[in-house]
Amino acid sequence: MSGSGILVVGSIALDTIRTPAGSRVSALGGSASYFALAASRYVPVRVVAVVGDDFQQSHRDTLSRERIDTSGIQVADGKTFRWEGVYSEDMNERTTIATELNVFDQFHPVLPEGYRNSKAVFLANIDPLLQEEVLDQLSDPWLVALDTMNYWISNRPADLLRVLRRVHIFLVNDAEARQLTGADNILKAAEGIRMMGPSIVVIKRGEYGALTRTERGWFQMPAYPVEALKDPTGAGDTFAGGMLGRLALEGNLDEKAVRRGIAHGTAIASFAVEEFGVEGLTRVREGELHARVRALHEMTRFDPE
Amino acid sequence: MSGSGILVVGSIALDTIRTPAGSRVSALGGSASYFALAASRYVPVRVVAVVGDDFQQSHRDTLSRERIDTSGIQVADGKTFRWEGVYSEDMNERTTIATELNVFDQFHPVLPEGYRNSKAVFLANIDPLLQEEVLDQLSDPWLVALDTMNYWISNRPADLLRVLRRVHIFLVNDAEARQLTGADNILKAAEGIRMMGPSIVVIKRGEYGALTRTERGWFQMPAYPVEALKDPTGAGDTFAGGMLGRLALEGNLDEKAVRRGIAHGTAIASFAVEEFGVEGLTRVREGELHARVRALHEMTRFDPE
Repeated sequence: MSGSGILVVGSIALDTIRTPAGSRVSALGGSASYFALAASRYVPVRVVAVVGDDFQQSHRDTLSRERIDTSGIQVADGKTFRWEGVYSEDMNERTTIATELNVFDQFHPVLPEGYRNSKAVFLANIDPLLQEEVLDQLSDPWLVALDTMNYWISNRPADLLRVLRRVHIFLVNDAEARQLTGADNILKAAEGIRMMGPSIVVIKRGEYGALTRTERGWFQMPAYPVEALKDPTGAGDTFAGGMLGRLALEGNLDEKAVRRGIAHGTAIASFAVEEFGVEGLTRVREGELHARVRALHEMTRFDPE
Repeated sequence: MSGSGILVVGSIALDTIRTPAGSRVSALGGSASYFALAASRYVPVRVVAVVGDDFQQSHRDTLSRERIDTSGIQVADGKTFRWEGVYSEDMNERTTIATELNVFDQFHPVLPEGYRNSKAVFLANIDPLLQEEVLDQLSDPWLVALDTMNYWISNRPADLLRVLRRVHIFLVNDAEARQLTGADNILKAAEGIRMMGPSIVVIKRGEYGALTRTERGWFQMPAYPVEALKDPTGAGDTFAGGMLGRLALEGNLDEKAVRRGIAHGTAIASFAVEEFGVEGLTRVREGELHARVRALHEMTRFDPE
């Protein structure tokens, strides 16, 4: 397992979500939850996160799947991280109603001894200082992937840049990539980020898919077309889980593997957004997932001559 | 020529454009100009439009290329259609400073006798009543493609719907597709439009490429990545020119031909936006164009297994 699994360090949250398609109260969420449920389709996943003493057994059961090791989830006195948000009519914008960090505020990722040999790791969107603490506890990972957000780019640029030098794959959205580099043009932004360390930069564009810069050049993948979008929450972390889980399974960062990983991330994210929270993610079957990867291939290929 | 050429009916304009990359005053523009310069890369193009007595010989020379027949351009007393616009810093938004319809206000498309056997036609964005007049003058076109805009959707819905029933390929942007159908979801909007007549619906998404619905299903093509965007004016009409010119050359609407057409439209549009007005379009060489089509193929393909 040590060679082919993946470690994720991020948040576990209880999300209250309202979209034009409905709502959920205190549903299981957080970057580590989405990531783990997606990546465990491919390889064993180790989760490092923190929950409060209010975290219900039913939520724990959702995460406790065959290939998810939850022994790295700390339980702290207090309440679990809570987030509440509402989406616009077209679901392209969301407004945060409330963020209660609770036990997440004092979180420090302490890796169980048995986790330190992890060879692949996803550092979900948390304080770059904590991301660095994780890397310092790992012996020699071949795959380090990182997510961040505008808050850390504004408030911890030096810490973020220091961590980025140790990263192979950086997942970031359009606006964050521009903010980090000061480049208006998204291609220049992606190239600028490569100078900061990551050899692979994945620009996440939501319903427009992902634009990726690798050593070989550009790779463009559209989103899988979804007719009945219910809840976009967690789409980015689910995408990361599918992509990196698949890459961990392949065991290398060749162009072919990276492209296939992005296709898997795109496919599994489409199932996530068709239902609320992690519901779609827990229900999707292996065959359906592969069918969407093949469908993506079919709907993007053309013969140039 | 009658079988393999394409007719375009649209505007010829003198554009005054300001973008963050510079500006031009009274440069050759208009949907018919962009379309003709792109489509003539593939097949002979017949142009029906109107200009005023101020239309300069230099502009006429730009249009008078080997494969562009300008004998259908009417010259009317008065001034040529003029448009002035300014683009935002990221060029994703533009503000119209002035629109002077001038001779275009009284324009009626009268096809020269020799044009009536045209087998392929692009009805650029003009009053749907005029688009209908064009179709009434054609004997039996196998390829009718149409563009429109929010103004006609709001103010001439019945006329537009009547014309759409006679259209094979409809090119439309995201917002217009939603407006026309009342569907929030872009996939539902595209499917709704197919019920109105066109078997092929191309949703133009600017820097995010094109999403196309055909009888076979979805086809997704990203934009060609452009690092030094200078002027997005005319990108949609250039795309249409490349796509439909290539389709006219192929002579059928098979899935393969449609996808290849979209790739050619995407490639040629990328050259247009790298320079002001039609400048990029007039300079691009055959070899460069094909190289970008191949590059698009390279940057979108992946192996699903």
